[in-house]
Formats: sequence, structure tokens, C-alpha cells
Amino acid sequence: MTKAIVLLSGGLDSATTLAIAKRERHDCYALSFEYGQRHAAELQAAQRVAQAMGVFEHRIFPLDLSAFGGSALTDPTIAVPVRPSEGIPVTYVPARNTIFLAVALGWAEVSNAHDLYIGVNAVDYSGYPDCRPEFITAFQAAANLGTKAGVEGRLFHIHTPLISLSKAEIIRKGRELNVDYSLTVSCYRADDQGRACGTCDACRLRAKGFHEAGIVDPTLYQTATPSINTSGG
Amino acid sequence: MTKAIVLLSGGLDSATTLAIAKRERHDCYALSFEYGQRHAAELQAAQRVAQAMGVFEHRIFPLDLSAFGGSALTDPTIAVPVRPSEGIPVTYVPARNTIFLAVALGWAEVSNAHDLYIGVNAVDYSGYPDCRPEFITAFQAAANLGTKAGVEGRLFHIHTPLISLSKAEIIRKGRELNVDYSLTVSCYRADDQGRACGTCDACRLRAKGFHEAGIVDPTLYQTATPSINTSGG
Repeated sequence: MTKAIVLLSGGLDSATTLAIAKRERHDCYALSFEYGQRHAAELQAAQRVAQAMGVFEHRIFPLDLSAFGGSALTDPTIAVPVRPSEGIPVTYVPARNTIFLAVALGWAEVSNAHDLYIGVNAVDYSGYPDCRPEFITAFQAAANLGTKAGVEGRLFHIHTPLISLSKAEIIRKGRELNVDYSLTVSCYRADDQGRACGTCDACRLRAKGFHEAGIVDPTLYQTATPSINTSGG
Repeated sequence: MTKAIVLLSGGLDSATTLAIAKRERHDCYALSFEYGQRHAAELQAAQRVAQAMGVFEHRIFPLDLSAFGGSALTDPTIAVPVRPSEGIPVTYVPARNTIFLAVALGWAEVSNAHDLYIGVNAVDYSGYPDCRPEFITAFQAAANLGTKAGVEGRLFHIHTPLISLSKAEIIRKGRELNVDYSLTVSCYRADDQGRACGTCDACRLRAKGFHEAGIVDPTLYQTATPSINTSGG
């Protein structure tokens, strides 16, 4: 068993990624960020998931990106869209995965871990540039040039097991690995109890995934009948 | 005038870098990090430098790397060496410049700045891997693949004006640009008043630079006669 750092947001994708890292026989160290996100309920979900899945350690690292704002997720004056938008949506948080991977890299190097897992996906996703394979490849190259471990040949490997899967495929894989998706929160506008809005981009992608996977959606919604169009978007 | 984000530690190199960014006709936004560093006096120096040099804004971003430790600068149980060591010294902070550049990138993207300045140097330096040009080039590539601005063609450029200069050349350049080095603190073991130990790696490189530049060293030392070997190290 070797150590792995797993980025854990508390959403569906990162929970599945954690299950895959465990199946790949790693001792898992989960890392979440309190980054000033609007949907703080995801951090409670991350704690539930980390506990349920038996990680060795779970850290919640404070790193306040709301100091910069510039995203609907970190600036309360920018509304979360309830309809699909053209191009990269306003929920994009500038440089978020670059920042999160950089901090994960620091923890990994100190801990003598060389495997990092991140649940990015470039199929059923919101078009965020830092979820694409070309970014991950480039970041990994920088990580191996900018660290003592990297230049000494103890290379870091950034695993992205979900990157080319559809949301339905991710959910089926998670089910095989006994991920309890009722613990997770994907919604950008979740309430204090973690109940989903049913209308934001994250809710749409998630509901569509359960629908296409033919698996009952365990998500708790704020309204009894969420207005989700599962035909696409 | 276009905006630039300048990483400002409070040391000699970053103060010189700020002066160069200003001369290159940028409106400068300085970014420092409260990262749990042992030598917190450098942050006071950063504030003095930012004020003296008239930046548009100076942010001190809290990001506690002492949560991870693993360096003499972030873990009080690891001593700062007072003699040159073989290889990369224990003052190396895992992934520090990756993390700092990632946060700077986030601020830059939100602020519509596309020029980032960092005072890394790969000549008179401590061998830190994240000060080398190959790392900076790789990080810049990742930055342009992982951001909305980058993929839309508004590319980020990471400027490293000191990277191939000796410490003496850096000091001469700073003097031409009227940098007041008495405001800066380089020492890893500076006391509360910013007075330098005179024996750590940072002190050695700095004192050697002033010596070789033939410029009077304005550094305040904790002892009247620091035991600095300016013949090299």
C-alpha cells in the first residue's frame, strides 16, 4: 500500500475517485478546501464521505478565494445560472484546480506520497478548462520540475480516473464500488442541510447521469419535484 | 499601462523585481503570503517595500503551509542550517512557488492582469527546484491551459527578470532603479525587528552579493560583526 492524496470536494465525482483510489490499493489522504465557496454544504458532505470510506486522514485546508471573487461560486453578487450558458459559465473559479493541485502537491511531497487523484471529467462537465487532460498533463510536468522529489526522480503522478467517462458511467462505476451517493452534494446552491436546488448546472449534470445510468437518484432536493431536464443540456 | 501581479516576499530579489516591473510600465499589484513562515519579519518588510515603491494594491494572502511542515521555514522543530549543505537544503518549502504562482494566477485572472512577475534566480541561489527556468516555463504552459483567459487566447506571461543574474548584478540593477535595500529582509532567522542573523544561507548569498557589487551592505544584523564568509558558499 502506498499513500495517495485524493482531492475530495464532497461531490459525486470526487467520492467516486476516492473509491477508485482505494481499490487501486492506496492509503488515502483526503484533501478538501474551505475556499469561500457559496455551497459550504459540500464540505459537510466531504466529511461524511471521508468518514464513510475510511480515509487515513482528512484535511480541510482554508484558502479564501472569495478574497478575489470573480466567480458565481465565490462572489455572492454573481448569481448561479439556472439555465445552460454558452461557453465557460460564470461558475468557473479562476485557477481553482491549479491552486488545489498545487497545495495537494505540497502535502504530497511532505508526506512522501507520489500519487494524486482528482475527479476531473471532460465529458459531462461544465467546460472548465482546468478539467481537461491537456491541463493535467501540463501541471504534472510542472510539478515534477518544481519539486525536490520530482527532480530527484521520485515522480508525481496525477490520476484522473474519470476524465473520459460520461456521468452515467461514473455513477455505474461508483455503484460497483459501493459509493453511497446519498452522502454527496453536487449542487452549487445547496441549502444548509445539503438539499439540492435541482436547477443549476451541477444538478442538471448529476440528475442526467442517474437517469442515463438507470439508477434511482438519491439526491435530496429542496422542492418535491425539481424541474430537471434530463434530456441533455 | 497594463496590470501586473508581482510576488513580493519582502526580500532583496522580489523588491528588485517590483522595481523592474514598474520600469516596464506596469501598474503593479503586489502579492505576499502569510504561509506560516518562521521569518514573519519578511512580511513587514514586504509592507514597507510595497508602500515605498507605490504599488496599486498590496495583498497579504493567508495560506498556512505550516499545517504540512516539512521545511525549516515552516516547521519550528527543523533548524535553519548555518553552514552550506549538500544538495537542496532543508529550507526548501515543498511546492512553494507552485502554490504561490497558482494563487497569483487566480488573482491575475480575476483582475484581468496577464503579466506575473516572480524574482526567482538560478545563479546565486539555494538550489530550490522551483526557482529554475524549466519549472517556470512548464508552469506557464499549465497556466495557459488551465484558465479561461488562457484558452481564450489572453495568455499569461510569467516574467523572471532575475533568473540568470548573479546576486551582485541584481543588486546593481536595483540600485540603478533606486531600490532601498535597507527596507528588505532576506534572513531566514530575522528577529522581530527584521535584523538578520548573518549566518543562514539567505544571509550568506545576500552579503556576498553586496560585497561583489562593491556596494555598502545596508542590512541590519543582530550582532555587530556577523560571521559571513563572502568568499563563496
